[in-house]
Amino acid sequence: MAVVDLNSDLGESFGAYSIGDDAAMLSIVSSANVACGFHGGDPLVMHETLRLARDKGVGVGAHPGFNDLWGFGRRPIVGDRPEDVEKQLIYQIGAIEAMARSLDMKIGHYKVHGALNNMACVDADLAMATARAVKMVNRDLIYLVMPGSEMEKAGEALGLNVAREIFADRAYTDEGMLVSRKDPRAMIEDADEAARRMVDFVLSGEIESASGKRIAAKIDSICVHGDSPHAVAMAGKVRDALVSAGVDIRPMMDTLGSD
Amino acid sequence: MAVVDLNSDLGESFGAYSIGDDAAMLSIVSSANVACGFHGGDPLVMHETLRLARDKGVGVGAHPGFNDLWGFGRRPIVGDRPEDVEKQLIYQIGAIEAMARSLDMKIGHYKVHGALNNMACVDADLAMATARAVKMVNRDLIYLVMPGSEMEKAGEALGLNVAREIFADRAYTDEGMLVSRKDPRAMIEDADEAARRMVDFVLSGEIESASGKRIAAKIDSICVHGDSPHAVAMAGKVRDALVSAGVDIRPMMDTLGSD
Amino acid sequence: MAVVDLNSDLGESFGAYSIGDDAAMLSIVSSANVACGFHGGDPLVMHETLRLARDKGVGVGAHPGFNDLWGFGRRPIVGDRPEDVEKQLIYQIGAIEAMARSLDMKIGHYKVHGALNNMACVDADLAMATARAVKMVNRDLIYLVMPGSEMEKAGEALGLNVAREIFADRAYTDEGMLVSRKDPRAMIEDADEAARRMVDFVLSGEIESASGKRIAAKIDSICVHGDSPHAVAMAGKVRDALVSAGVDIRPMMDTLGSD
Amino acid sequence: MAVVDLNSDLGESFGAYSIGDDAAMLSIVSSANVACGFHGGDPLVMHETLRLARDKGVGVGAHPGFNDLWGFGRRPIVGDRPEDVEKQLIYQIGAIEAMARSLDMKIGHYKVHGALNNMACVDADLAMATARAVKMVNRDLIYLVMPGSEMEKAGEALGLNVAREIFADRAYTDEGMLVSRKDPRAMIEDADEAARRMVDFVLSGEIESASGKRIAAKIDSICVHGDSPHAVAMAGKVRDALVSAGVDIRPMMDTLGSD
Repeated sequence: MAVVDLNSDLGESFGAYSIGDDAAMLSIVSSANVACGFHGGDPLVMHETLRLARDKGVGVGAHPGFNDLWGFGRRPIVGDRPEDVEKQLIYQIGAIEAMARSLDMKIGHYKVHGALNNMACVDADLAMATARAVKMVNRDLIYLVMPGSEMEKAGEALGLNVAREIFADRAYTDEGMLVSRKDPRAMIEDADEAARRMVDFVLSGEIESASGKRIAAKIDSICVHGDSPHAVAMAGKVRDALVSAGVDIRPMMDTLGSD
Repeated sequence: MAVVDLNSDLGESFGAYSIGDDAAMLSIVSSANVACGFHGGDPLVMHETLRLARDKGVGVGAHPGFNDLWGFGRRPIVGDRPEDVEKQLIYQIGAIEAMARSLDMKIGHYKVHGALNNMACVDADLAMATARAVKMVNRDLIYLVMPGSEMEKAGEALGLNVAREIFADRAYTDEGMLVSRKDPRAMIEDADEAARRMVDFVLSGEIESASGKRIAAKIDSICVHGDSPHAVAMAGKVRDALVSAGVDIRPMMDTLGSD
Repeated sequence: MAVVDLNSDLGESFGAYSIGDDAAMLSIVSSANVACGFHGGDPLVMHETLRLARDKGVGVGAHPGFNDLWGFGRRPIVGDRPEDVEKQLIYQIGAIEAMARSLDMKIGHYKVHGALNNMACVDADLAMATARAVKMVNRDLIYLVMPGSEMEKAGEALGLNVAREIFADRAYTDEGMLVSRKDPRAMIEDADEAARRMVDFVLSGEIESASGKRIAAKIDSICVHGDSPHAVAMAGKVRDALVSAGVDIRPMMDTLGSD
Repeated sequence: MAVVDLNSDLGESFGAYSIGDDAAMLSIVSSANVACGFHGGDPLVMHETLRLARDKGVGVGAHPGFNDLWGFGRRPIVGDRPEDVEKQLIYQIGAIEAMARSLDMKIGHYKVHGALNNMACVDADLAMATARAVKMVNRDLIYLVMPGSEMEKAGEALGLNVAREIFADRAYTDEGMLVSRKDPRAMIEDADEAARRMVDFVLSGEIESASGKRIAAKIDSICVHGDSPHAVAMAGKVRDALVSAGVDIRPMMDTLGSD
């Protein structure tokens, strides 16, 4: 029976500010990437998100980013040395691991957020910093990355427990990379089409590229978004279609975790 | 042979901003209370402070505070529920524990910073929140508090490894409490006098109150400051006087730690 | 013909975080208290809020608060000297005046936010600091305060253009003060009742206290909220009832402004 | 008689954190670029810096930067649209103008800080945003820029009152641009050499390039630094050498200001 994980970024609210429909998404996904207080989230939101995830049987991961609340971690910040980025990631992973411990929970995976993820996908030194950070704090954490990225290489080089993700709402090139956002075909806007593609992919093990080519891919998790009603609806359709096709949706920490 | 610990707040610099003479203080104290990024400190400063402490054989502790960088954690912030303060402390303790782990070090103690410490000394609910936080994350940490405070009671009630501190630069009442800062006798300004008092206290086990009464006291650590040249000089004199009197100055985690 | 102003706090979104239904409220109120970037708001949100207010014919005011984004300016922060609070207010007023100038608009009034407003209502020194701040930057701004507060006295003492507000959703004591939130009668939850009360008040010039007593009151503006769908609905009902009763709803700067 | 201005970045302390030797620099320079609270500075520091500058007869300018306190405004932050950067600058200029007004002072010039300045030197759209910001708020402010930069062009295109600066501690190419920091000749480390060069430049109107070529240059102000004891010493030597050579050191607002 085919198995896949669905992951999404959650717990990004801050103080009086609420963002994303976490309640809806926690009924859809099997793994939550929980913000760690730098690009979004705060200790109270983190605690509440972890607790809700536990109640829903959703696996939880650390989702650290740049210390840029105003930019929501989406702005490239240039000039931090990789070893300094590493320390910022260690800090955030430790913070959420302690919060999980206070709830008798365990953090299962680790996915870098936003601009820092984008930058580390193509910068080998930065990628190695993101991999070293998790190795230093807890090498059992699943290191969730884009296949083909520098982060994947760094994770493999350091012997991490690497998992790979695909984006439900993005088109792929013949080489299995994301179609650039400058290309009009980059985004899959239609929720049914996204759902159909993900079922096809999970059952066949192949991604259908924007040109129609089929590419074999080893993928462990599908990333969906919850930052707009449209995104939540798409995520729900992806889940429903997978369930209807008999796919088992399970937290990556259940299938890939080390204990 | 008499033994005592000397502790001080360190690692409170932030980005381009440097505060305190950490290098000097690390040659004076045996335990460093290292800021956790909310009232001061940042991941880079935290890493560097831990590393330097290790090189000097100085024990390290978590020193979390209010999330108030501008106020340096010294302003009372009213209105957070104790359970919410608890989560902020859990976050900070976890962050510094991970940073220590990345350096193959262990955090040995925990001391709450500034206004939050002052408030928790007299507010039983807040005191219990500060004690629960450390119990949740790592109950082996030494919980460093003011004797006679609500924090001491909370630590004892939760079965924590409680340590008690005395301030080298403060006068005490006949009841063993701090003389109010409104009283002109509150501060011990003279470094030699401070040094003399600390030697007397360590050798006799009694604090000399402002009125001259001698009060038996169980104290594990002497708190000194490093935020001005005068403070650093006083700290140095306290250390030198203790050493001359044959007192062994050792990290509290060596004498009180659980492993 | 009776005239009154309706004011509400707007422009409190921050970066990726949206809060409050500003679009709906700008069709309801005649004056917007626009956040100044300390407790909420940012330069982009501020610009957009001012622009939208202009398009809707809504008057705009500076709405500065404590520098506490996480607490949304609602937490009492103790220990800043009044003269230091004053400088924080001057900074914020200047920032929004410049933003208005860049849009060929003028800030017309000034209302302090949240915890700082609450504290200044009862602390004469703090009240005087809030009044001095606006006098220093632009003494033509209308100084919007609670009647009976220390802020009202401070504004009168400094010869400011003082305006007084009533809260549509709060009950009043026989002395014309707010019924404490600890009293179950404090909040007017029913939108129709709130609307009825406001029409009665505007037409009669008297507030009906919680005990039924009628108190003569000089009020220039009614404060409504937009931070929940219920609050927006109440604000809409208050407006509709006033219009139906023939009350002219006009920006306070039209009727009280100095030029 | 030759006249020149000496400018330096000041007022960059924050809360409990002190940075730079402002007291020393205010006795050396004739114009202070005062931080506006985003990359450094806060309302209290701003007020104090303006007041001290007034007492010393030093002209004051707005010195806004990226909203990046941790990075001190020195990290390139990519992805803000120029029109959004413009609003952030408007906000900061307005804030400091109000603070100056509260002290019966006037802001005379405007110089963008750090990474944003570097980026706007070579990015025409960003340069135009920095120029539009000051035009929107107060077109009388002197717009202080690097000669040859996109900012200079933007200022001229918008009809601003443009002033040009030279760096006392930097070498120049034959084209009058800064020698890249990757080139070992980039920095003038020797204070006497820096002083000699500045006197030569002011008296001759020519910059001596790193290769020895003499380039005619129209410069209004010399930028010196105060962020290290060495920098303060160099600034003092530059001033002393200019005074000894009979050069009149005067605030740019005295010679270039519009009123």
